[in-house]
Amino acid sequence: MTSLNRFSINQMTVKQLSLPELAEACAQLGVLNVGLWREPVQSYGVEATAKLIREAGLTVTTLCRGGFLTATDPTARAAALDDNRRAVEEAATLGTDTLVLVSGGLPSGSKDLYGARERIADALSVLAPQAEQHGVKLAIEPLHPMYASDRCVVSTLTQALDLAERFPAHQVGVAVDTYHIWWDDRAPAEIARAGATGRIHTFQLADWTTPLPEGVLNGRAQLGDGAIDLRAWQTHVETAGYTGAIEVELFNDTLWTRDGREVLAETAARFTHHTTP
Amino acid sequence: MTSLNRFSINQMTVKQLSLPELAEACAQLGVLNVGLWREPVQSYGVEATAKLIREAGLTVTTLCRGGFLTATDPTARAAALDDNRRAVEEAATLGTDTLVLVSGGLPSGSKDLYGARERIADALSVLAPQAEQHGVKLAIEPLHPMYASDRCVVSTLTQALDLAERFPAHQVGVAVDTYHIWWDDRAPAEIARAGATGRIHTFQLADWTTPLPEGVLNGRAQLGDGAIDLRAWQTHVETAGYTGAIEVELFNDTLWTRDGREVLAETAARFTHHTTP
Repeated sequence: MTSLNRFSINQMTVKQLSLPELAEACAQLGVLNVGLWREPVQSYGVEATAKLIREAGLTVTTLCRGGFLTATDPTARAAALDDNRRAVEEAATLGTDTLVLVSGGLPSGSKDLYGARERIADALSVLAPQAEQHGVKLAIEPLHPMYASDRCVVSTLTQALDLAERFPAHQVGVAVDTYHIWWDDRAPAEIARAGATGRIHTFQLADWTTPLPEGVLNGRAQLGDGAIDLRAWQTHVETAGYTGAIEVELFNDTLWTRDGREVLAETAARFTHHTTP
Repeated sequence: MTSLNRFSINQMTVKQLSLPELAEACAQLGVLNVGLWREPVQSYGVEATAKLIREAGLTVTTLCRGGFLTATDPTARAAALDDNRRAVEEAATLGTDTLVLVSGGLPSGSKDLYGARERIADALSVLAPQAEQHGVKLAIEPLHPMYASDRCVVSTLTQALDLAERFPAHQVGVAVDTYHIWWDDRAPAEIARAGATGRIHTFQLADWTTPLPEGVLNGRAQLGDGAIDLRAWQTHVETAGYTGAIEVELFNDTLWTRDGREVLAETAARFTHHTTP
């Protein structure tokens, strides 16, 4: 096994690369796995992307992202369910079994985090069986609490698992992303809880540095540059039984200004250095 | 009881006002309580501030802040303990019984949150008895997890109470600040836990809006402008037995550009509107 066998490059880390450029760069570097995002895939065409990825011999580890399931307005809610159904179909077409969900924030004017989380559960009860029919698992991704109001009311692995465990594990699990959970001293125990029922559907790495940029979206740091003990988190998920791919997903304005192939090579090297084979 | 009896204006909310201007504005508006910060107090003089505040008939609800107790370097550690001892003395001189602690972030290059929290406990074992001798209680303030690396490794009320409960309640308790805990679904139970042992040493209000500004320090929103159900949190602390002052502490670049008296009047009005007398 080479050190990159479990490495997956999330497309957003090198979003400056087109899909054909990404496939070619992966081939040159020996990268075998990619995590894809819906918007660039839709731009290139879902079927065309599937063909490109298949012919390049790449495995799609996840599709990001479904979710945004917290609307109270019936029309917005129906639209969200439709959109998530399409996301499931796209995941199936791309040949991945994992759709990552970012649950959504508070509706405008609402202060009710509890109600928003219950609406997510309601939506999952519709989506999860649909996804199963397509051979796709849903992975609820808890996002850092700094996103609780506007992006994701699910802020901890505890909350994500409380939602996921209402459904069978092959329908709904969680996404474990170091950037979002590294501060949480309960997270190791929650990873064990997730692993015990087979609910770790993906494991993603990013590092944490400060100062955070305005809007706090695009400050996810290159592996090794920040405060997160990445290898410790890898040990937690592997002790919990996770043997799947490890995705590196960085949103970083500085990385995006650089040559995408160079960033991919650097990311692969950092992965090798900061994970245990 | 007027609606402002329990209102305390934290000095940072209107930092554009000098201490005499603040005292005068409080008198004009019927504001009875202030929370002070060490830096402007030191600039004006600690004794002089104490005299000014006393003659204005104001009560000092808290002094912010001690803390930054996570250094590993022995010299830096000794300097931090010295500085905190001075902070205790300043609190006593100002006539407040509560010193708020911001615990400190990770030392440069460290990824060890657990070790940092243990160093805080070690420091408290020195500081807490010193503070008691001066009639001062220490209030550990959990800061939002977005500050975990560079400012405060204590990110939840749970962690703050786990530290505080190693000491008598009249020595060490917690600061409950809505801005830092509003996302945490365990916080209501932890407030009850804190109240049951008399450890809610201060209650502070700020609201949460996005996008967060670069550095995420100065985006604390005016009461009512954001996502936090302030009255619900007031109910939690009061159900837990808290009857003390309610401080409004906003760090907000936009508020700081405005006339300080106008901001104080607005803040008092918002307090009246968004709290229960």
